[in-house]
This record gives sequence, structure tokens and C-alpha cells, in this order.
Amino acid sequence: MTLETTAVQTTGAPPEHSLLERRGRTLGSHSPLFYTEPLEIVEGEGVWVHDAAGKTYLDVYNNVPHVGHSNAAVREAITAQLLKVNLHTRYLHSRVVEYAEKLLATFDEPLDRVFFTNSGSEANELALRIARQHTGNTGILISDHSYHGNTTSLAELTTALRVKEPLGPHVRTLTIPDAFGLTPAKEKRLLAQALAEVDAAISSLEQSGHGLSAILFDPIFSTEGLLKTPRGYIEAVAERVHAAGGLVIADEVQSGLGRIGAHMWGHQMYGTTPDLVTLGKPMGNGHPVGAAVTSAALMEEFGENNTYFNTFAGNPVSASAGLAVLQVMEDQNLLDNTRRLGRFINRELRALALDNPRIKSVRGSGLFFGLEIVRPTDSEPDPETTNAIVEDLRDRGVLIGRIGRHDNVLKMRPPLVFERHHAELMLDRVRLALEAQNAD
Amino acid sequence: MTLETTAVQTTGAPPEHSLLERRGRTLGSHSPLFYTEPLEIVEGEGVWVHDAAGKTYLDVYNNVPHVGHSNAAVREAITAQLLKVNLHTRYLHSRVVEYAEKLLATFDEPLDRVFFTNSGSEANELALRIARQHTGNTGILISDHSYHGNTTSLAELTTALRVKEPLGPHVRTLTIPDAFGLTPAKEKRLLAQALAEVDAAISSLEQSGHGLSAILFDPIFSTEGLLKTPRGYIEAVAERVHAAGGLVIADEVQSGLGRIGAHMWGHQMYGTTPDLVTLGKPMGNGHPVGAAVTSAALMEEFGENNTYFNTFAGNPVSASAGLAVLQVMEDQNLLDNTRRLGRFINRELRALALDNPRIKSVRGSGLFFGLEIVRPTDSEPDPETTNAIVEDLRDRGVLIGRIGRHDNVLKMRPPLVFERHHAELMLDRVRLALEAQNAD
Repeated sequence: MTLETTAVQTTGAPPEHSLLERRGRTLGSHSPLFYTEPLEIVEGEGVWVHDAAGKTYLDVYNNVPHVGHSNAAVREAITAQLLKVNLHTRYLHSRVVEYAEKLLATFDEPLDRVFFTNSGSEANELALRIARQHTGNTGILISDHSYHGNTTSLAELTTALRVKEPLGPHVRTLTIPDAFGLTPAKEKRLLAQALAEVDAAISSLEQSGHGLSAILFDPIFSTEGLLKTPRGYIEAVAERVHAAGGLVIADEVQSGLGRIGAHMWGHQMYGTTPDLVTLGKPMGNGHPVGAAVTSAALMEEFGENNTYFNTFAGNPVSASAGLAVLQVMEDQNLLDNTRRLGRFINRELRALALDNPRIKSVRGSGLFFGLEIVRPTDSEPDPETTNAIVEDLRDRGVLIGRIGRHDNVLKMRPPLVFERHHAELMLDRVRLALEAQNAD
Repeated sequence: MTLETTAVQTTGAPPEHSLLERRGRTLGSHSPLFYTEPLEIVEGEGVWVHDAAGKTYLDVYNNVPHVGHSNAAVREAITAQLLKVNLHTRYLHSRVVEYAEKLLATFDEPLDRVFFTNSGSEANELALRIARQHTGNTGILISDHSYHGNTTSLAELTTALRVKEPLGPHVRTLTIPDAFGLTPAKEKRLLAQALAEVDAAISSLEQSGHGLSAILFDPIFSTEGLLKTPRGYIEAVAERVHAAGGLVIADEVQSGLGRIGAHMWGHQMYGTTPDLVTLGKPMGNGHPVGAAVTSAALMEEFGENNTYFNTFAGNPVSASAGLAVLQVMEDQNLLDNTRRLGRFINRELRALALDNPRIKSVRGSGLFFGLEIVRPTDSEPDPETTNAIVEDLRDRGVLIGRIGRHDNVLKMRPPLVFERHHAELMLDRVRLALEAQNAD
């Protein structure tokens, strides 16, 4: 679904005391819900979920149940630890250290330290505190259609979701260049133009007295619609940010933990290593786990000036959940699976796009795909049709979402235990849903 | 332990590859640890925990395992839900609604809506966003020795813990009056003086252009050392805050969920209902659960202007954990137990204080006690002795901590499944630890 989901109004709602009505009276009428007719998911296993009426859906939306719904290994790890003890990190515990070691082994030098948190929001908050303190500056660069969490500081740099807080005076947005389908010459011109924008943004922050503390970005620009940045863009941006004294923060809540197939972490696609990497959603397969990974130097500097403690984060149960997810990925070769299956799906989606004028581009890699949907007449973004396809696929038993600057990119992002036959089913249903639109 | 705990230095640490060494190399040398010789807790049940060497401790420190370490009902609820499904709140699910209903039933009108979060930090962040947006102001009143979380906005109003961020220009601290042991006349004078300080702080915020958005406070002022505010103080402060257009936010992370015995929530001690109540630590018995409880009016106003979504918060597993905690409290009558046992402990501690010049006061209620430790010679705060007692009690198999403006208040705050014989054991050991100090 899109980041902005339907707020279900209490008027027109089902009879009193229905679940929806009770939800409205406790969580409020604005608590976001997917679909025009909200879906009540009561069970799941692997890539399948079942609603309250017994209908089964192929889950091609949810990235949080990373190693599959109701994964037995994760459940058993959580239960086994709950049988022992669940306390904070101010007592020693081997589990949190084991998890930290296994997690950090997937990062490149100098990223060898981790602060655990309970969410991506907490991780981004911490990364920004570290960057502000390290640089003595407050300015932040973000992408033009971004979301990094729900706190005050993060609301002030939110552009992709409805928040009342205006963009902070210390924030500059960068129009992220999309080189998809461009000739090398055009890509080069786009790169030069985009880097000029970065230079201007940094100058503007310096001139206004904020200075540059950090750039915070999703390496795959998923909220923007899964962009393909010009070759060398990220490296050149990082160089400019560093030259201005700022830090580079990769928000890997969407792109991390093997999602892109080619690498464990999205930033590893590029020839530059961030100063901080923030993690969230898939880490604990649904158990609240997040983290900020950084270098010993940055961690120690922060630690000298601040006592950072987080009550729940890194507790042995959370660590067991995170460790089990890494173990399942290893045991089932999920990174390889994601890469191979991703190639297959990409090829099939491109074949589908060839004879369908509604599909302007096929984006993404690994197990995160976007189909850019446009009007066949003039190739302009078509969010209405995109939404109609999402709703239609629900009826056809497939859960997907949508993203993008114009809400016109079908978002396909299943648990990583997706298999070839699931992909074939998904492709078949997507084909049918597209045909149904053409028939209208 | 005190909020500021020992940072273990890598120099002088045990042999390479020890757990402590490995921890330092992953979580860093500043990640806080309790005790001079850190404690490795590997198991626990009820009010007991066991370290790696097999030694058993009575846990009189930890409030997070609210209904007891390794509680079977909480574990079974989590496991049962993990067998089914664990997804976010953008699909309907009955469990989160059941939890919301049961939780909200413990609040007074008009507090009938809840935003779920993963931590107290996230809850306080959200409460402050709501207050700032509702009032159009940014000013915040806090107590003089406070800690409300680890984000940027919360670091800017932290006074009790080491943070590099200076106190925000929009923040005013209030010296919270302590009427402990005062005559009615003196208490009345103290009240007048304290309210004059509130008036001055509000004026200062108004004159500096920040205006007043909220007061954020812990109803039992635990970090300050469990203060006893003059009768009418909280009500008069709330009245002044409201008159200036601000909101009242009670941070019940420490004081809530039956901890004080007399009431389910700390603010219910007073004749005023806050506009927002934030929850954390004990909610899920260690599972990351937090919440911000408010009125329908404030929630709807916020929802009209902001899409608030929190990936993990309110998921059916977190909700199951929270619901199980409430159910155990009900089944085992833990609120009554806390009240009754608290009276007994209070009486015994006061008897202990009578013939011990090191104890200046006995504070707290329910199952949250503070013993104010002073020098027998001049009754001045004695943080060294306080710390020595904490360390000594560790050797005697009892875990407690310390708090207070001067780090001189012994903090006793066991899981609520504490029983009379545990209390007797604790009292006996505390007595011995005090005697040992006198013998020195």
C-alpha cells in the first residue's frame, strides 16, 4: 500500500461493536488501515496469510516477516529465551553479544559497533544525535520523498507522509536523479545537474548557519519509487558530504538484511561506506528490533559525552529473535535465493512490460520490485489505476502495495522465503490484474 | 542503580575474549553496566534471578519484569500468538483492540484513546508532538532532575543523565518541592514558593516567545528521589499550565501499572486528570511495549493533520504480551498485593530508620521505596555510602539500585509478585547492610 493509507471514517462503518467500530473507539478513526474494505489477517505461515473469513492470500507486501510468517525457528528462539530471563543490557548477557558479533560480521570496515534500539525511528534519532554532536552542525540533507520515522526530529524531515510539522529550517531536500532508461550521455548530464543541486544545498546550509551534519537516505530510494541513480552519484554525494564535514547515514530499514539480493546491505551496491547505518523492520521478523551500526571512533566519541541507555533494546529475547533471523537466512541461503529469484522475476516483469503500455518501467532488484504504472494514452503517472490494481489483486488473493512520488508504482516485496512457484503465481495474478484494467 | 552507571573501561578488563571484552568490542566501552564487577544474569523466575556462577539474587530492582521473571502466562501468550501471525496494525486484528479496551478501562474520563509505541521514549516523543501541535507553542516544563527518553527532543530536556545536548532554550526546569516531614505551616509556605516558581517559568516561556506547550512529569518524581509534593501542588500546577494554554503530560513509565499500590496510575493520586499519559517499561513484562493515552479530542485533532504509523507497535504479539500482563495482575490481585505489602514494608523501613541516623527518610509507596542515606554526623547526602550499600547488598544476594538528586536514595522496586517472605528477607538484608556500614 502507499505510505498514506485510507483513514476509515466511523460514518458508514459496519454495525456497532464490530471490530472496526471497536478499533475506532480505542485506536481512533485515523489509525491507518489498508484497503477500502480493511483486511483482518488472523493467521500466516511462510508467504501465506489467511483472513478472518478463511480466504488465503499470497503475501507480496510484507517485509517485516522477513524469514516468513510464524517462522518456527524465530518463535522457538523467543520462547526458549522467555523461559530463561529477559532483562536489560546493564547486566552482562552472552546473547546480545553473540547477536552483535553475527550482525556486525555482515558489515564492512570500519562499521564494527552497534547500538541496539527497538525501532527504525529510534535508530535514526540516535544516528542524527551522533551526527549533530560529531559535527557541531545541525543541517540535514534528505531525499525529496522520504520517511524516516515518527518522532519530532524525524517529522521535521518527512516529505512523503502527512505531518503537521513544517520541513525544518535546517533541512534541505535533494531531488534524487532517476537514470532509468537514459542513454549514457543523458545519464552523465543528469549526474552533473544532480551534483550541482547537492553543492547548492550544502552551500545553503552553510550560509544559513546550520552547517551540514548529515545526509540521511535510503540506498534504494524505495519511497521515491525505487530509483536508479546515475552511476557514481552516491559516491560523489558522500564525497561532498564528507568534504563539508558531514556524516553519511544509510537508512537500511527498507533496503537491508539481504532484501536487494546482490548484497546484504543496500549501501554495499556503492563504492562508499556510510558512517552510520540504521536498521529496523525485518531484523526480528516482527519482534521490535532496530539498530544503529557505526565505527568504534564515532561510538566512543558519543559515549564519552552521553549515557545512552535503552530499556528494552538488546534484551536477550530481542537478541534471540534477531539472531534466529540471521541464522535462518544462513541456513536457508536466503541471500542467494533472493538474488536468483529476483533475476527471474525481473526478467518476467520486463517481458510483461514489453506488450503493456501501462507499465513504464520495471524497478528494483532482489525481492523488492516496482512496476511504474502510467496512462497508456500519454504515459503520465496513473495513481488511480495503480490503486485499482492493488485492490483487484487483493480480490485475486495477492497482497501488494504502492509507492512512489506519484503513488503510481506497484510495490512487490514478499518475505524472503518466497519461492519460484510463488513468483509464478504472483506474476500470473499481476498479468490478470493488468489485463482486467485493459478490459475496462 | 543510579541512572548514571559505571562505564567499564577496556583497560583493566578481564582476559581477551571474555564476555566483557567481546561486549566492549561490539556494544562499546560506554554501554552502561551495573556494579563494579558486572553481573551476568542467566536465569530468573518470579522475584529471583541467577547469575552465571549459579548464585541466586532476590530482585528488588527490576520493574520491567512486572509480573515476575519468566512469567508463564506472558510467555504462553507470546508463543501462542507467534504461532498464528505477527503483523502491523494496518490490517485489522482483534488482539490489539482487546488490549486497548482492557488498558483504557483502567483510566478515567476523558482518557479513552491509545497510541501504541515500542518504548517510553517513543511515547514521550508522540505526546510532545501532540502538545506542540495542539497549542502552537514549543515551551516545556520539566522537573529539575529528570529523564524521559533517549531521542533528540528528549535529550534536550534531560537533567538527570549525561547528554551533550544543552537544555533547550524552550525548556524550563521546576525545582520540585519536597514536603517530606514538614509542618503544615512550612508545607504551605513551600507550596506558595513552588507555585511562584511555576508562574515565573511560564511567564519566562511566554516572554521568550516559546509559549507553553506542556509540562512533562513523573507523578512520583522517582528520579528526584521519590518526592512528596505539598498537598495541592500538582493540582495547582495543572491549573496554571491549562490557564496558559498548555497540556499536562504524566510520564507513567515508572509510576504506572499499579506500581504505587494505591492506584493503577500515579496521576490518580491527585485531583486532576492529565491530558496525556505515557507508558513504557512494565507494560509487556520485558517485551517492548509503550503507549500514549489521551482523549478522543486530542487524538482526532492530531490524526487530522498527521499520519501516525508505527511498524511494530500494537502488533498482535506485543498486544498479547501487554494483555497477559493485565490479566495476570487481575488474576493474582497484584494491585491489592502491592498496596498491602507496601504498607508493611513502609512500616518496617520506618522502624529501621528510627534507630539509624544514616536514614534521613523513608519514601515511596506500593512497591517502590526509597531510603534517603545521609552522613550520621551532619545529615548531608551520602552517595558513597549509598553506593557501598548497593554493592554490599549484591554480595548479600539482593539487587537494588539508587536514585535521587544526590544519588543517595536506595531504590527498592521489585516485580509486583513480591510476597511477604520476600519482603522480610529484603528487610533483613538491608538491615545487615546498614549495620555493616555502621561497623566500618
